[in-house]
Amino acid sequence: MKALVFHGPGQTSWQDVPDPSIKDAADAIVRVDAVTICGTDLHIVKGDVPEVTPGRILGHEAVGTVVEVGGDVRSVRPGDRVLISCISACGRCRFCREGHYGQCRGGGGWVLGHTIDGTQAEYVRVPFADLSVYPLPSALASHDAVLLADIFPTSYEVGVLNGNVRPGDTVVVVGAGPIGLAAIATAQLYSPGRIIAVDLAASRLAAARDLGADATANADEEPERLVEDLTDGLGADVVIEAVGVPEAFEMCTRMVRPGGRVANIGVHGKPAVLHLEDLWIKDVTITTGLVDTHSTPMLLRMMAAGRLPGAAMVTHRFELDQMEEAYDVFSRAGDTGALKVVLGGPQHDTVAVPPQEQ
Amino acid sequence: MKALVFHGPGQTSWQDVPDPSIKDAADAIVRVDAVTICGTDLHIVKGDVPEVTPGRILGHEAVGTVVEVGGDVRSVRPGDRVLISCISACGRCRFCREGHYGQCRGGGGWVLGHTIDGTQAEYVRVPFADLSVYPLPSALASHDAVLLADIFPTSYEVGVLNGNVRPGDTVVVVGAGPIGLAAIATAQLYSPGRIIAVDLAASRLAAARDLGADATANADEEPERLVEDLTDGLGADVVIEAVGVPEAFEMCTRMVRPGGRVANIGVHGKPAVLHLEDLWIKDVTITTGLVDTHSTPMLLRMMAAGRLPGAAMVTHRFELDQMEEAYDVFSRAGDTGALKVVLGGPQHDTVAVPPQEQ
Amino acid sequence: MKALVFHGPGQTSWQDVPDPSIKDAADAIVRVDAVTICGTDLHIVKGDVPEVTPGRILGHEAVGTVVEVGGDVRSVRPGDRVLISCISACGRCRFCREGHYGQCRGGGGWVLGHTIDGTQAEYVRVPFADLSVYPLPSALASHDAVLLADIFPTSYEVGVLNGNVRPGDTVVVVGAGPIGLAAIATAQLYSPGRIIAVDLAASRLAAARDLGADATANADEEPERLVEDLTDGLGADVVIEAVGVPEAFEMCTRMVRPGGRVANIGVHGKPAVLHLEDLWIKDVTITTGLVDTHSTPMLLRMMAAGRLPGAAMVTHRFELDQMEEAYDVFSRAGDTGALKVVLGGPQHDTVAVPPQEQ
Amino acid sequence: MKALVFHGPGQTSWQDVPDPSIKDAADAIVRVDAVTICGTDLHIVKGDVPEVTPGRILGHEAVGTVVEVGGDVRSVRPGDRVLISCISACGRCRFCREGHYGQCRGGGGWVLGHTIDGTQAEYVRVPFADLSVYPLPSALASHDAVLLADIFPTSYEVGVLNGNVRPGDTVVVVGAGPIGLAAIATAQLYSPGRIIAVDLAASRLAAARDLGADATANADEEPERLVEDLTDGLGADVVIEAVGVPEAFEMCTRMVRPGGRVANIGVHGKPAVLHLEDLWIKDVTITTGLVDTHSTPMLLRMMAAGRLPGAAMVTHRFELDQMEEAYDVFSRAGDTGALKVVLGGPQHDTVAVPPQEQ
Repeated sequence: MKALVFHGPGQTSWQDVPDPSIKDAADAIVRVDAVTICGTDLHIVKGDVPEVTPGRILGHEAVGTVVEVGGDVRSVRPGDRVLISCISACGRCRFCREGHYGQCRGGGGWVLGHTIDGTQAEYVRVPFADLSVYPLPSALASHDAVLLADIFPTSYEVGVLNGNVRPGDTVVVVGAGPIGLAAIATAQLYSPGRIIAVDLAASRLAAARDLGADATANADEEPERLVEDLTDGLGADVVIEAVGVPEAFEMCTRMVRPGGRVANIGVHGKPAVLHLEDLWIKDVTITTGLVDTHSTPMLLRMMAAGRLPGAAMVTHRFELDQMEEAYDVFSRAGDTGALKVVLGGPQHDTVAVPPQEQ
Repeated sequence: MKALVFHGPGQTSWQDVPDPSIKDAADAIVRVDAVTICGTDLHIVKGDVPEVTPGRILGHEAVGTVVEVGGDVRSVRPGDRVLISCISACGRCRFCREGHYGQCRGGGGWVLGHTIDGTQAEYVRVPFADLSVYPLPSALASHDAVLLADIFPTSYEVGVLNGNVRPGDTVVVVGAGPIGLAAIATAQLYSPGRIIAVDLAASRLAAARDLGADATANADEEPERLVEDLTDGLGADVVIEAVGVPEAFEMCTRMVRPGGRVANIGVHGKPAVLHLEDLWIKDVTITTGLVDTHSTPMLLRMMAAGRLPGAAMVTHRFELDQMEEAYDVFSRAGDTGALKVVLGGPQHDTVAVPPQEQ
Repeated sequence: MKALVFHGPGQTSWQDVPDPSIKDAADAIVRVDAVTICGTDLHIVKGDVPEVTPGRILGHEAVGTVVEVGGDVRSVRPGDRVLISCISACGRCRFCREGHYGQCRGGGGWVLGHTIDGTQAEYVRVPFADLSVYPLPSALASHDAVLLADIFPTSYEVGVLNGNVRPGDTVVVVGAGPIGLAAIATAQLYSPGRIIAVDLAASRLAAARDLGADATANADEEPERLVEDLTDGLGADVVIEAVGVPEAFEMCTRMVRPGGRVANIGVHGKPAVLHLEDLWIKDVTITTGLVDTHSTPMLLRMMAAGRLPGAAMVTHRFELDQMEEAYDVFSRAGDTGALKVVLGGPQHDTVAVPPQEQ
Repeated sequence: MKALVFHGPGQTSWQDVPDPSIKDAADAIVRVDAVTICGTDLHIVKGDVPEVTPGRILGHEAVGTVVEVGGDVRSVRPGDRVLISCISACGRCRFCREGHYGQCRGGGGWVLGHTIDGTQAEYVRVPFADLSVYPLPSALASHDAVLLADIFPTSYEVGVLNGNVRPGDTVVVVGAGPIGLAAIATAQLYSPGRIIAVDLAASRLAAARDLGADATANADEEPERLVEDLTDGLGADVVIEAVGVPEAFEMCTRMVRPGGRVANIGVHGKPAVLHLEDLWIKDVTITTGLVDTHSTPMLLRMMAAGRLPGAAMVTHRFELDQMEEAYDVFSRAGDTGALKVVLGGPQHDTVAVPPQEQ
């Protein structure tokens, strides 16, 4: 089959590789119908994630069709159209028992495209399939559903739930890239009174408004002042960091009100300064986290019911074998305006229909 | 009356000052029967707390007897023996309505010995008396009860409750001064599986063991290794910072397990480094806070029932007019072994008894 | 002034009574600009609420203008346009300190039109004014705001919050009178996946759909079957009782899924049968409650922002002196289709503007 | 092998039956080393649980040694000494993913000795072994550990956690049989201020005091009056029903304070009367539930650390083949004073040691 292989910093290629096969009775082999590229993939390609070694197939988000399952798999069978979650779960370790799949100690967690071969390929082996893939209703298009593999549960769990967004709250989302936009979309499930988006790019702020932000501020134009003005000087109830740089995180800790919450979603490569000399007295809660995907079934139902945006987040569509072009477009988001790019999709959505219905 | 007056950095004196009087219908005037000195008072004396201006009477913890009340005061009357809380509460602002008295916007919060005259005096004016003093059962000695003015509710709310200590947890308390020791004592209300105390002073670690720590580690001897060993390499469920320096806080963030909580109680004067490059993926929750004292009534009942230690925390006793000597002993804790020093106490405990009963 | 006076079961009159006056320094006297009638008032008139004695002025919901305040009142002053909450709060008792104003032990709780004279009058004395009235933004019309005095906080706190409605949930609301409709409206703040309304009246089910119910069922036509069908036989996540009769409550306990919640809002006069032989194993949570009104400030902001319906709940408008006619229309809701009836309103909304601005 | 077989109401026998064998790759076969009898078993024998059909081997609590595992089992292997939980968990269904194993829809839940053969036998087949058995530390004696199969997690989760016991609370436990006593023991993990036990038998009230109850009341002697007196007329914060008859449940709802919680653990065969005419306004929360056993690992650690009582609950010891005698003694608890009876135990505790170490 073809797959996107990492060959070391700066080097990837869409190339022939051996087809995956069942290695463990809990595995499933899934044909990839739609796949996307994550900001984290760009970090990997740059060489920022040393656990990813040369030869690794990248990608941790996809929608596909099950083609084979191991003997222990009970929840899906060949022919099932499924969401492949970015997180796999052994289901047996202490963390999985608590629903903290992202922290799985039994061989799961974030493994796809990280410590085992991933989804940017024609086929992928998914370990612990029973807890790691989700059957999809036929009404849900693959290019929408693929957003449920990572960015929707991540923004919802690590941003909205960790941030404890409540009705009437003032919520600031710093960073209006795909994850920040998904946070804006999912925060609305809790009816905040006001969502303020902060970014450097006017196009992303426009997308934020389209997805429901009530106010936007350019990161260069004193967004803290805006937050202060809108909250009578008090600060925001919840501030969500969706960038991953120290300056953004530090801005979040200045924007939060006494008693408020800062929820970090950003993937950071450097430490930040925590101004405890100001914060010690301020009753703030700061959270970090990798997604657990415990919310995936609910988000899937909500998207199927039209209650979450899909298409609005996707700026570019490609065929699966245009992987290298898609990477190029996505990596130059400043120029291309790319938010999410999706490869594959609708043309594959009917393939899984059983023969007699065709 | 006599009072301990701050005259600028490094300068205080126990001197004559005018008696306080009712300024607002919600005030009470309380005769001080027992009072203590807080580590924060030492910071003030050094000049670290610029809001405290020369001429201010210090102190925010005391037990006393009400001598006069304003027209709005409904909960206490002259003759009542009361705990004076370190936190006053207007009861009307948004924060008070949520029980966040520490963040009061209506003239309360931490005001005594900070922005208004405090308790290290023979008499003190307490604003918003109905929500700021607590009648004491006669069985509770003043030198025990005075610990409920600040260190017990602070360690319990900002350490134990913010840290969400649960039965079976491994809890690390970094810093075994008065606040850390009170955290060790109050954490036991939630039956952690194991409490590990960390400090530099052997005498404080001994006190920690007396108050219920299961293990202790000198801060210089790789306490992180001990925590790792005791938790199969996972880290602690809850880490409580009770020191107030960047190094201690940073150690806490290294000791916490994935999914764990770091509760900062320490009063910090400098920023700390937050290693988001390690923590972003680790599902940690970091909290800060000033005490609200919403738990004071419960802690008071528990102490009256003998369920919280009092005397074990008090190393030195003085008469009220030995204030300067007490400050000296307390400020040289390294030499004197001082934990809490209490001025006044039992000899005054009977004074409030109504005449006919004597 | 004129007021609606209860003279014993079945007997009320709109008659002359003495004007109210300040009795306690925490009181406010408020001129009533808009007032409504509650189902509970009908129960009182029937004689079902023995605490209400002859001579009592009824009513516990209103919007008005402060005309006089006692010496302790700090939050409002004469001329302020305010919401009069159905719940008064002493602010000092154990329950008020926890935000459980409905259970106030210090002279508050539900007192207006119950144990003291109420709001169905030209003027009303409101005790503990600081915690019992809420200044209104000028943009909020009185005939909308008056719904915040009782039915919105009641349905939200006792129904939606006690029922712990979460995104994606299936919520059943049994009873589509004013309280049930308000529960349908406020449940949407938590984005349930589906709201099912049950009632006997087609007009109320139509109102339920207008306010956001996704499905409706006539109480006579096997609503339990509908819930079963829509939830794959599992039952609803949350069932809200908004009727107040045993049959309705018992239906709720049959409709709830294992692990689900039944939140009772209905005012009951008789016991219900609790089928513990079925429920003991089912992990259900059943809650009851009087509103605390801790959510009133948030709901007020949300209504001012157009996020909660007002007019849609009001079927009939009257002048204040048409009180008896309004009672007649409201008490014959089956014939008149009455939901909420409002007396007074817009024509009064400008009166509170300070003279110099007119 | 030998096993206790149910042959219809009133009829059981300890008899020869075929040895169990692996039927599913997730199964384990466990040799029973210690087993106990539950009050529910007595209900089954009487014929009160129609799902239990003639031919069924009874029992859902045991400690044993794994002798064989299916191909999917990853957490235990032959030779491991394990606790057999009363609840099995498929680990894949919606309820298992939320940790609600007791409500498992995938073939687990309470199945042992109910819908499949149970533990009152020399060997037992345990389905879904990975999530249904727990390796035991060697320091924990089998006759203590067997109490972790059901009564400790049941009393803790369904009583203490559902009841939300908090430090300082007044907790009433109605029923001082094994489950009630275990509730008294586990409630202390949250440091209530006071535990009051209610029962008809003086011997059980004595056992309650031994296990930590602060006060006891005979159910015939106005226990409600005692609760009222001890709580200044307010009622208890938490009331735990551990009997399973309507009168006991109804007493619980009268004893609870406004804003309090009633947690039902009792297995009920008949409906109770719920006095909504009193309770609707009282802010009470009533919970029911089957145990999920999510707390089993924590309780196991706490028992191994000596923090939970074991022996104090066990009044009678038998050999495994004295099953019928043990049933007789347990079923006549009024005469025999039986609390928990344990069959097997210490003499078996060493058998699992690998041969080379002997």
